[in-house]
Amino acid sequence: MPDVGIQGGRRGITAAAVPALVDKAREGDPRSVGRLVSLVEDESPLLPELTRILAPHAGNARIIGLTGSPGVGKSTSTNALIGELRKRGQRVAVLAVDPSSPFSGGALLGDRIRMGDHVLDPGVFIRSMAARGHLGGLAWTTPQALRVLDAAGFDVVLVETVGVGQSEVEVAGQADTTIVLLAPGMGDGIQAAKAGILEIGDLYVVNKADREGADKVRRDLRSMLGLAERRDGAWKPPVLKTTASTGEGVEEVVDAIEQHGAWLRESGELHKRRVRRARGEIETLALTALRRRWGLVGEGDRLDELARAVVAGETDPYAAADRLL
Amino acid sequence: MPDVGIQGGRRGITAAAVPALVDKAREGDPRSVGRLVSLVEDESPLLPELTRILAPHAGNARIIGLTGSPGVGKSTSTNALIGELRKRGQRVAVLAVDPSSPFSGGALLGDRIRMGDHVLDPGVFIRSMAARGHLGGLAWTTPQALRVLDAAGFDVVLVETVGVGQSEVEVAGQADTTIVLLAPGMGDGIQAAKAGILEIGDLYVVNKADREGADKVRRDLRSMLGLAERRDGAWKPPVLKTTASTGEGVEEVVDAIEQHGAWLRESGELHKRRVRRARGEIETLALTALRRRWGLVGEGDRLDELARAVVAGETDPYAAADRLL
Repeated sequence: MPDVGIQGGRRGITAAAVPALVDKAREGDPRSVGRLVSLVEDESPLLPELTRILAPHAGNARIIGLTGSPGVGKSTSTNALIGELRKRGQRVAVLAVDPSSPFSGGALLGDRIRMGDHVLDPGVFIRSMAARGHLGGLAWTTPQALRVLDAAGFDVVLVETVGVGQSEVEVAGQADTTIVLLAPGMGDGIQAAKAGILEIGDLYVVNKADREGADKVRRDLRSMLGLAERRDGAWKPPVLKTTASTGEGVEEVVDAIEQHGAWLRESGELHKRRVRRARGEIETLALTALRRRWGLVGEGDRLDELARAVVAGETDPYAAADRLL
Repeated sequence: MPDVGIQGGRRGITAAAVPALVDKAREGDPRSVGRLVSLVEDESPLLPELTRILAPHAGNARIIGLTGSPGVGKSTSTNALIGELRKRGQRVAVLAVDPSSPFSGGALLGDRIRMGDHVLDPGVFIRSMAARGHLGGLAWTTPQALRVLDAAGFDVVLVETVGVGQSEVEVAGQADTTIVLLAPGMGDGIQAAKAGILEIGDLYVVNKADREGADKVRRDLRSMLGLAERRDGAWKPPVLKTTASTGEGVEEVVDAIEQHGAWLRESGELHKRRVRRARGEIETLALTALRRRWGLVGEGDRLDELARAVVAGETDPYAAADRLL
């Protein structure tokens, strides 16, 4: 039970121990990396200090988002992508985020088994994270966990999410390059349109290409993407095909990731995206600090008092919000 | 094209005209009610003023939430519930919110056709609302639209949502009584568990009871609900069956709504829920005001400036959030 060890480790961490832990993580010690991610997942009070120490070392990793409905083959694809990236000499970290689960222990073990090819490879780090916390969910924790993996020196960080709702779209927004995975026979066209997935993909991959209907999914997707207006010089998301279980097509996906990376740098879009993300993170941290402050100010709960006054008809919500500020 | 008229009306509204519009809405003029809801949907700058005028008149309507996956028969059920409530002499407003759609015009027309039985009844008002705005989506607009309908003197306001994600759960949280609708043959058990729907229902209704599998859905749901721990004196959500298309079972649903209403009042839970909702609304309004302020302070965009400093490595997100506050 690896989680027991991690739990014990979490409790033992003090502010004074953080710099040494960061040093060890940067030297490639997977256990230290795991403990730092646990600090994020647990919403530790040490996070401001940790962030201050990590920030100068971050900004070098390529963040790749991988999203898709359940059953399209995300884990198999992640496994195959790791293999191809390793062939090219890249150190790879995987952060699998599960917005619907309050627990990560089980998923962690599950992922380790599914991504079994790479468990013993010191150039690969795999970690699941769940929406355990109360501060702001995965939109709050994901950027901080990515900073840990980035600062730890991984060349590529893959963020894997289940692409079915708003929070997944937000998580995908943390990536430099977002890959949307689809598969035949899942009504994906409709799902894609519903979840706003047509707006978030930099790369579309139709997995399970050996199954009937793969070409139709690809055609439909291309025509839907073709309808979207794009500016001159804008990136045109390619639609690729893979059979992740055999590795077929995976090389082309990694090539496309690299092409997109080059475009991001040359177009100035990489900097724009990173500023946008930093903006979102600062805003989330500031709002979280405020919510905490409003929940417990002075001797009473100020917000609760105002809410009671609204229900009693003594004030209205806008006036109450004004007084809160 | 009714929407054209509404659009024209929206543009024409000035602060001075709001009190008269509220008076006309309270006299039962559906066009005035519609124009006030449009002010909310458009995130009009008149909303603080409108809220101040409406607040003393609100708090009398029963807010009933109706949620369920696509295809369970929400519109048909709404139609049947309206019929039964009208028989009991209640004035009914329906607010159909669609988190996935940026447009309400089409849905509005569609709902009017589907709920056709009641289009000419002056005791019934039906309105769709979409996630058009930028301030905070439906979590921001729904309570304000409900206040319009409540203050306009409707005895019951039905809020209809598609129950598939977090925002729908939030919308359902605006209701005094939340009805979760299911139907056989849709894998609803799993869906219910996934979307956290087992926690939000005060009443569960298995619709399409004439179809195979309805009893199984009911049994499964009852046993899942039975596993949840409930305090003494807590409400035990009943699981009812309907065939909304024929009206079968709808009387029992309205009876259960009334029983739940009595329990809410007697247990003190109604007041608790309303305080919780007011709390949420004040918080959302305050945070929205802050976000707007941060977006445009002084001569530059303060948040953008800080984000650039983070990307340049001159500061870290926590320190930047501190400076923002």
